Amino acid sequence: MSEISEKLRIAIIGSGSWATALAKMFMNNLPGLNWYFRKEETIELFRKFHHNPNYLQAVEFDVDRIHFYSDINEIAEQSDILVFAIPSAFLKDALKDLKVDITNKFVVSAIKGIVPDDNLVVGQFFHEYFNVPYEQFGVIAGPCHAEEVARELLSYLTIASPDVKKARQFAFLLESPYIRTHISDDIWGTEYSSVLKNIMAIAAGISHGLRYGDNFQAVLMSNAIQEIKRFVDTVHPITRDIKSSAYLGDLLVTGYSQYSRNRTFGTMIGKGYTVRSAMLEMHMIAEGYFATKCIREINSRYNVNMPITDAVFNILYESISPAIELRILTEHLR
Amino acid sequence: MSEISEKLRIAIIGSGSWATALAKMFMNNLPGLNWYFRKEETIELFRKFHHNPNYLQAVEFDVDRIHFYSDINEIAEQSDILVFAIPSAFLKDALKDLKVDITNKFVVSAIKGIVPDDNLVVGQFFHEYFNVPYEQFGVIAGPCHAEEVARELLSYLTIASPDVKKARQFAFLLESPYIRTHISDDIWGTEYSSVLKNIMAIAAGISHGLRYGDNFQAVLMSNAIQEIKRFVDTVHPITRDIKSSAYLGDLLVTGYSQYSRNRTFGTMIGKGYTVRSAMLEMHMIAEGYFATKCIREINSRYNVNMPITDAVFNILYESISPAIELRILTEHLR
Repeated sequence: MSEISEKLRIAIIGSGSWATALAKMFMNNLPGLNWYFRKEETIELFRKFHHNPNYLQAVEFDVDRIHFYSDINEIAEQSDILVFAIPSAFLKDALKDLKVDITNKFVVSAIKGIVPDDNLVVGQFFHEYFNVPYEQFGVIAGPCHAEEVARELLSYLTIASPDVKKARQFAFLLESPYIRTHISDDIWGTEYSSVLKNIMAIAAGISHGLRYGDNFQAVLMSNAIQEIKRFVDTVHPITRDIKSSAYLGDLLVTGYSQYSRNRTFGTMIGKGYTVRSAMLEMHMIAEGYFATKCIREINSRYNVNMPITDAVFNILYESISPAIELRILTEHLR
Repeated sequence: MSEISEKLRIAIIGSGSWATALAKMFMNNLPGLNWYFRKEETIELFRKFHHNPNYLQAVEFDVDRIHFYSDINEIAEQSDILVFAIPSAFLKDALKDLKVDITNKFVVSAIKGIVPDDNLVVGQFFHEYFNVPYEQFGVIAGPCHAEEVARELLSYLTIASPDVKKARQFAFLLESPYIRTHISDDIWGTEYSSVLKNIMAIAAGISHGLRYGDNFQAVLMSNAIQEIKRFVDTVHPITRDIKSSAYLGDLLVTGYSQYSRNRTFGTMIGKGYTVRSAMLEMHMIAEGYFATKCIREINSRYNVNMPITDAVFNILYESISPAIELRILTEHLR
């Protein structure tokens, strides 16, 4: 594929709130959309009620312009651009039956997570498992809560791809009066930092749950962006301004916002919920939970100083009391 | 003065919430404290009720250990360290009768503002008007809301002085189980960025008042720290990490917190209050209001690209509609 335009067939793979927000953005600009749902019954409900039955129900869709699929090979076959928006923990399973060659498609990750066990960011995963060249890969980065897209509140996205021309063309398909886009070639940095910010948001939630205040939160977030920079610059050393919206903005929207499920998850942990009961209560996946373990494992190769990630790991996976672990963490912050 | 210790006589000049929070910190560590109030009647009420009658009333003081003054020359005469915590707009007036030589005292600014008309940051002001050498000057920087100090919530302060040894010794006098301190030699950067963050907080408030959401707020704050860096690095070019708590943290605590009067002021402006009615309603000074004009004037010499400051200036001083000005600003953000 040499050019991206609205003539190409775009597929969204995923049925959550971010997938739904992206569908809304595309539907502003495209004649039609392919959309994959795992369950046939979700599709039926969607068709009947003209909205996603489970997420962002207030967003109405013209279902006649949507081609629904529940067969991953069929949608891959029928699409030129594949946008993945499913929790990273389920990605491998969702693609286990994929037989269609996707090496000549433009593959886009709207996933903010790492594929567990393999510890691969999404670009790596598609490269290693499906031979997708990096030039055919893109990332949609925040700062952007789906809930605010649903309400058409002005939001900025960063589209990253090593092929910045493709990134720009793809970005154009998302733009609208309430969606601004910017371009980057830093797929590694945007992927890793969008993963790390979920860990930081869990830390923010834990400290909030333990009744630390706004003064501490500001110190925590300042240290968080420094920790993200240390890690990302080590793993993929290029010149990047970590203060840009795609990195710092994404951290802030997650660390400070009421919509963030990672922060909510952390708050519950800070208040004394177990991991299992917090997960059950939320009915949602907190990507940061899985990311914490993955990043720890990846960092065993790099040995970047990551006190916040370490603290979250100790709380979530080593059953160390949040109060004690946070107390220790406070000594490492500046 | 060569050494700072608890044997020296410390004076707080100011009667607001930040002055009161600082007094609380010092009283943890010092046998006594000198404290200046402009009005004798405030001192009488303080003595009677054992707390500041106007701010942080929940904080009780051992008044027998406080020496109250309402004469600026007397307190200056009787003190070795002078900590100023009054709104910058009133500083010149408060000191107009000061006759005592303060060139051998350690002068500390807890003011986050610029002296209007002169357009001097506080260190410059004391240097130019009172011949205080910069080596005898220090800055207390956030991120720190007085309200959370009152509640003894863990907070971090940065103490800056060109004489870092003095900074360290002074910092020691503020430390407690809930106050951590760090040291810096960057008096210019901490002063200017603490001034700028108030302008940014007004912008945050305006956008909030206009019903922009969290997604936009994150983009605004990312651009705000970049704007602060551009200005501070131009005015005083040294190597500094703008992501440190004293700069970024201070911005975040002000831009995101409910306690910030600058943000509240901005919110009222965004909702349609006039500057005058917002000020009256708040009963408090929003430092950022004055800072906006001062920084604009200072920047006429440097020509740093400052879209957020310009937008706030146009709204507050040029009567341009917040809705229109913010719409234009959104085009400049990335």
